[in-house]
Amino acid sequence: MPLIQIDLDRELYERAGDQLGKGVHQAQLDTLDIPGDDLFQVFTPRPEGELRFDRTFGGVDRQQLVLMRVTMVHMYSVATKRRFFEAVADRFAEAGVRREDILIAVTENGFEDWYAGS
Amino acid sequence: MPLIQIDLDRELYERAGDQLGKGVHQAQLDTLDIPGDDLFQVFTPRPEGELRFDRTFGGVDRQQLVLMRVTMVHMYSVATKRRFFEAVADRFAEAGVRREDILIAVTENGFEDWYAGS
Amino acid sequence: MPLIQIDLDRELYERAGDQLGKGVHQAQLDTLDIPGDDLFQVFTPRPEGELRFDRTFGGVDRQQLVLMRVTMVHMYSVATKRRFFEAVADRFAEAGVRREDILIAVTENGFEDWYAGS
Repeated sequence: MPLIQIDLDRELYERAGDQLGKGVHQAQLDTLDIPGDDLFQVFTPRPEGELRFDRTFGGVDRQQLVLMRVTMVHMYSVATKRRFFEAVADRFAEAGVRREDILIAVTENGFEDWYAGS
Repeated sequence: MPLIQIDLDRELYERAGDQLGKGVHQAQLDTLDIPGDDLFQVFTPRPEGELRFDRTFGGVDRQQLVLMRVTMVHMYSVATKRRFFEAVADRFAEAGVRREDILIAVTENGFEDWYAGS
Repeated sequence: MPLIQIDLDRELYERAGDQLGKGVHQAQLDTLDIPGDDLFQVFTPRPEGELRFDRTFGGVDRQQLVLMRVTMVHMYSVATKRRFFEAVADRFAEAGVRREDILIAVTENGFEDWYAGS
């Protein structure tokens, strides 16, 4: 039950939201070994001004902010997380999102911290 | 100072937001032993498309997504969390929300991670 | 890469959003020893009703809710966090925000839980 929350410019959401949603899910399937029907996503399209960022932090050329917050159980290795991040960046690139514009933040919890309808 | 964040369809928010807010607070009172005036809630009503989910994950018949994120101090047992989740589901059912449509995700922190105005 | 998320009344956002954004960043510079270009902020202006709170919890006189969620790496002492909270409250006061109206919640993760474009 990873929970995916993506905040992004409204223009990008309307143009590529579906593709980004499918892309992150495919990245989860490819790297996190989740069941195929494990999909919980929240998209928040943002008008100009709500997403604020520095254009050069980390030595990259940042043009917009595509923020992805992930809440998931503490069970993945550092290497697995890196593979997941790379897979997300690869899939997002297919939707025209530059790697430099992505910020991913993972917050972990335990199995006992979830309730999914039963 | 549990912080409750609820994302839900706008229609449901307008019809039952007040009842859901009172319901989750009552569930906290009944199972988490919080003071009666400890209430911090954020409701985010969503248009169609922003909440994305699989309709059958976990073997349930999911018709909509009522997402409740809880940030609270690491101090509750697994059994207490389960009682809390069940109490939320019971209260939400009174507002016409199906158990199968609820997703709860808890993220924990410490007492030192809060500032509440003093 | 602390991620700052601020939920606040739309009226306050429109009047003082820029100042609040600069204020929290200055507080981070002054107390968390971040690089000057480390800035990731999400503002969510809220209409009446979405932010719900008790007006007297904690023995203060609360008139509105300015919610700041911070996601940052687990590396700061309790004393440093307190200095950060105080610095935020001082800066927000310059924008006319009462200390009593602030709620800050920190959630921590690890260095390996971030991806920032490279």
